[in-house]
Amino acid sequence: MRFGIIGTGTVGRTLAAKLVALGHEVTLGSRTKDNTAAVSWADQSGPNGHAGTFADAADFGEVVINATAGTVSLPALRLAGAERLAGKVLIDVSNPLVFSPTGEVSLEPVNTDSVGEQIQREFPETRVVKALNTLSAPLMVDPGRVPGPHQLFVAGEDPEAKALVRGVLEQFGWPGDQIVDLGGISAARGTEMLMPFWLRLMGHFGHTDFNYSIRSAD
Amino acid sequence: MRFGIIGTGTVGRTLAAKLVALGHEVTLGSRTKDNTAAVSWADQSGPNGHAGTFADAADFGEVVINATAGTVSLPALRLAGAERLAGKVLIDVSNPLVFSPTGEVSLEPVNTDSVGEQIQREFPETRVVKALNTLSAPLMVDPGRVPGPHQLFVAGEDPEAKALVRGVLEQFGWPGDQIVDLGGISAARGTEMLMPFWLRLMGHFGHTDFNYSIRSAD
Repeated sequence: MRFGIIGTGTVGRTLAAKLVALGHEVTLGSRTKDNTAAVSWADQSGPNGHAGTFADAADFGEVVINATAGTVSLPALRLAGAERLAGKVLIDVSNPLVFSPTGEVSLEPVNTDSVGEQIQREFPETRVVKALNTLSAPLMVDPGRVPGPHQLFVAGEDPEAKALVRGVLEQFGWPGDQIVDLGGISAARGTEMLMPFWLRLMGHFGHTDFNYSIRSAD
Repeated sequence: MRFGIIGTGTVGRTLAAKLVALGHEVTLGSRTKDNTAAVSWADQSGPNGHAGTFADAADFGEVVINATAGTVSLPALRLAGAERLAGKVLIDVSNPLVFSPTGEVSLEPVNTDSVGEQIQREFPETRVVKALNTLSAPLMVDPGRVPGPHQLFVAGEDPEAKALVRGVLEQFGWPGDQIVDLGGISAARGTEMLMPFWLRLMGHFGHTDFNYSIRSAD
């Protein structure tokens, strides 16, 4: 399958590398065509890895992944272009972290809105699925880094899009029964709002190889 | 030990009953002295269960538990009285849920503040520990309702206060190694902000007998 990835940070490059390793074709998109991270990634990635602009990535992908910071996702996706995103599944991996000058971290949007919802509202013809925003990049593509069962959460309005994303996540190594469907895209509020808790857990453990396992009575 | 509980809802009554069952003495405090829920609870609870006002409960307790809705915790604790709360450990179990006319749930405060911090700021001589706000009332006092290991989270500025609360939680049946210290009281933002996710999980499971188990690499 062809994937277009919007954003060349750790998350974008980690997902791109895994997708190429799985035999998919990827264009890693950045704001400018000559972005060093994207070009050097493509140079090392063989014939299935390409670099380009946000628009190139959106054009190329049958599935598009938003791996930009949540605070700049809308302007990045505007550059990608609504017409290029129309009809496509967009996996939104973002969290809208705001870093204050004093080092405090907060979210914007939050509480009554989320990046997932913002994207779905502004790109109504795109099939947005919130996923993978609740754990570190290495763990996204290698769930075995954490022992035992632990979970991923998906949210979105389009059941077929969620089924497609589930298939991609299973290719990443996630057991199907550990992928929890939380409902419509407004559930992205809940998963994005996990971030302050996740950051405290990171402080507690001293690393990012941890994840949520929800335990339930039968 | 003597406990004063501020708030007569499900959480307050559940904690009160468990504490009495453990042999502690409890005053369940409400806004008015003749609150039906508090008086009928005390009538059924034997010699160690009492009903009174918020002020009576704060006066009575060596440890005070805030079991009011987070949106009204500050006014309730003002009625309890800063001088009665001074020097005491206060376990803040609240979440500041706001229900919109359309049924949407949000939090206030959120993101850059929390109820735990609000209370600690307004009552600086009280030793606030955020705890137990991440799970249902029946599960708070009966962790075996959910199989396997699952966790509680505490946050606060005072290590001795957190140690005391840990002891109470262990009496409730929580293994000490499943009580995770997230640091200072600002970590209450993280645990209060779990609520939108928790509500989605409730929708997914169709009940409230579930909890978080954080899995980590060694």
